[in-house]
Amino acid sequence: MRKKFILEESDVPKMWYNIKADLAKSPDPLLNPSNNEPLKPEEMEALFAKELVRQEFSNDRWHEIPDEVLELYKMYRPTPLVRAYSLERELDTPAKIFFKNESVSPVGSHKLNTAIAQAYYNKQEGIKRITTETGAGQWGSAMSIACSHFGLELDVFMVRQSYDAKPYRKILMNSYGASVHSSPSQITDYGRGLCASSPEERGSLGIAISEAVEMAVKNSNTRYTLGSVLDHVLLHQSIIGLEAEKQMEMAGERPDKIIACFGGGSNFAGIAFPFIRHNIRAIAAEPAACPKLTKGEYRYDFGDSAGLTPLIPMFTLGHDFSPEQIHAAGLRYHGGGRLVSHLKREGFIDSVAIEQSEAFSAGLLFARSEGIIPAPESNHAIAAVVREALKAKESGKSEVILFNLSGHGLLDLSAYKEYL
Amino acid sequence: MRKKFILEESDVPKMWYNIKADLAKSPDPLLNPSNNEPLKPEEMEALFAKELVRQEFSNDRWHEIPDEVLELYKMYRPTPLVRAYSLERELDTPAKIFFKNESVSPVGSHKLNTAIAQAYYNKQEGIKRITTETGAGQWGSAMSIACSHFGLELDVFMVRQSYDAKPYRKILMNSYGASVHSSPSQITDYGRGLCASSPEERGSLGIAISEAVEMAVKNSNTRYTLGSVLDHVLLHQSIIGLEAEKQMEMAGERPDKIIACFGGGSNFAGIAFPFIRHNIRAIAAEPAACPKLTKGEYRYDFGDSAGLTPLIPMFTLGHDFSPEQIHAAGLRYHGGGRLVSHLKREGFIDSVAIEQSEAFSAGLLFARSEGIIPAPESNHAIAAVVREALKAKESGKSEVILFNLSGHGLLDLSAYKEYL
Repeated sequence: MRKKFILEESDVPKMWYNIKADLAKSPDPLLNPSNNEPLKPEEMEALFAKELVRQEFSNDRWHEIPDEVLELYKMYRPTPLVRAYSLERELDTPAKIFFKNESVSPVGSHKLNTAIAQAYYNKQEGIKRITTETGAGQWGSAMSIACSHFGLELDVFMVRQSYDAKPYRKILMNSYGASVHSSPSQITDYGRGLCASSPEERGSLGIAISEAVEMAVKNSNTRYTLGSVLDHVLLHQSIIGLEAEKQMEMAGERPDKIIACFGGGSNFAGIAFPFIRHNIRAIAAEPAACPKLTKGEYRYDFGDSAGLTPLIPMFTLGHDFSPEQIHAAGLRYHGGGRLVSHLKREGFIDSVAIEQSEAFSAGLLFARSEGIIPAPESNHAIAAVVREALKAKESGKSEVILFNLSGHGLLDLSAYKEYL
Repeated sequence: MRKKFILEESDVPKMWYNIKADLAKSPDPLLNPSNNEPLKPEEMEALFAKELVRQEFSNDRWHEIPDEVLELYKMYRPTPLVRAYSLERELDTPAKIFFKNESVSPVGSHKLNTAIAQAYYNKQEGIKRITTETGAGQWGSAMSIACSHFGLELDVFMVRQSYDAKPYRKILMNSYGASVHSSPSQITDYGRGLCASSPEERGSLGIAISEAVEMAVKNSNTRYTLGSVLDHVLLHQSIIGLEAEKQMEMAGERPDKIIACFGGGSNFAGIAFPFIRHNIRAIAAEPAACPKLTKGEYRYDFGDSAGLTPLIPMFTLGHDFSPEQIHAAGLRYHGGGRLVSHLKREGFIDSVAIEQSEAFSAGLLFARSEGIIPAPESNHAIAAVVREALKAKESGKSEVILFNLSGHGLLDLSAYKEYL
């Protein structure tokens, strides 16, 4: 029985896929909060590299991946598609379960797919220094490798809760030459203000974004990068689903359902969007502690705490929402982003909210059957897969489930310790 | 430029390679310490599964890999062979550098190659419980996954120094259901005695082996397993070199030199032995703190501290040698093992002793160029590669170097922190 389906390097897709080209109805535009008018591309260019802004606003279906980016993708791409026979056996389900293993990258997650691209375009445009935020540390680690490769300086604002709980992530970023700041920090106005007014503040992604944006705007030759939420980030992540599409063909199966965990949408959109264009349904697995798609309100909201970003039309729990401190720090973001929220409203996407204990229980089952310790974020996807596989067993229906293993949990073992 | 050379699952070798079949001169035998007579297979069977003893004494060139083992190998095998273009560029060397990436396994090292086989044979023979030792934690983690899969209980004696310094490794083993004891422990006679006489003892592989052996001998349905040194362990690891042989053919290159770090010999022999049979030279990279091949004496010595094992003919620093506490805990073993020591004497193998600072400096260079943070053990191999590549640059000679990246360092980041 074949277990892994592996592409040749030469079969790695040469283009990213933009789902906006295939939408019957366009998503609502981003707004400039100063005048509530649709945001113009040039208004974003103080913050992001020009080519990234162009991609953000583009409706072209396909975007060519630069050779230099493809070359760096070879560090870890193509990633394997795996048939989870042992998990199927454990669950005694007629469902066929496949997963795309994005944990094989050097930082242990899918985040490099867009980090490499973002660092590349900034370098091309003569930018010297990058700022960004990180929650769990996966995104900051990815930007560290990418910036190290292209010779860019990097300042990472790391949510204080994670900064304290995950010292290994900080060392990993330092090893690649990045500067890492506990957020809220003393090096931005917004951070200093918060530290003064709320000395006990443990930080949030929204706060860290505000700090990184402030630093980018106030310094010359400096741009901000974001690891999720925005259209250009989701575009780069489409490489996951495009590879998986070819691999499912190798396996001779068509998925009935795509499942991924959901924080800001980057791994979810990455695996799901290329399949949604073939009318395959996708399920976003959110943490019960931060269920924006499942329980949030669709409206315009800021992407950060301080209100420095454009207004984004999305399902949101409010940009001042402070979710409890779950281990899946990468899923603690208040909003669903423009594209995923639009697709949810249009009925292409379902969402489920998963309690932390259910997520870890599923993650350990996966680890013991398939060998790999998943990231706490990915555990939410696995829990949703387990639910679907057990439903299939009940109804006696053989169906094909594909999920994204967004990352491994080797740097999150303290979370497992608490669960055990 | 193609970077990775990846086999199909169906091309994973179906047999392990035993270099003893190709030796003009036989290595000296193991001795029974009670009478100094050559050890008989049946005398080992109280300690090891029978099939493993049969393999230990076998001179057959090829040993069939059981289907169940091949099936589990698919968790992570075949592993990639990678051309290290970026490292070559950094070193500005005419040498072509390839590495076999064994870090992609779920525990992050090559140790699963033999853990799966050893757990399988024990299960086949009706054994219920396994004991073993672990230094850095790589081997204990590998046995934990393997035992979890086959439903075997597992007791791991973890060198106290590592137990305290690497809490994540312990959690990883616990996640797979293993019991982990800080060694010296209170649960064996030998451990209790040591704790009483030397309360400050930080442990060693030799001590941990003594404890694991004692527990195996004193309990029914219990066997001991070892992660390195012995012939049957090296046999299982030959899968590394056999895969690499096919992959070097894909790359159209023949290696001039094979390099691997050297602790007890498992990753070194794994990559080197299949190439030594084609008269390709190998270099063992030892830590300067524990240079048994480079500075040890060839004689009979015990494999453990307490003198519970058979006598092994090998290069040794003495079974009571206590190396300083370097980060590469997996290389802190006093002896070179029978087969590697024999090949060193016969002139097939060179060795070099590498200082810790040189190892970490090479490891960081590798991380920043190739993306992957190597295990502290693997850093020694990389340092030896850097030396050879710079020699090639000096002499203007284009040569092909193949090394084994035995593991990644994501669970060893505290070691990097100290170095940084």
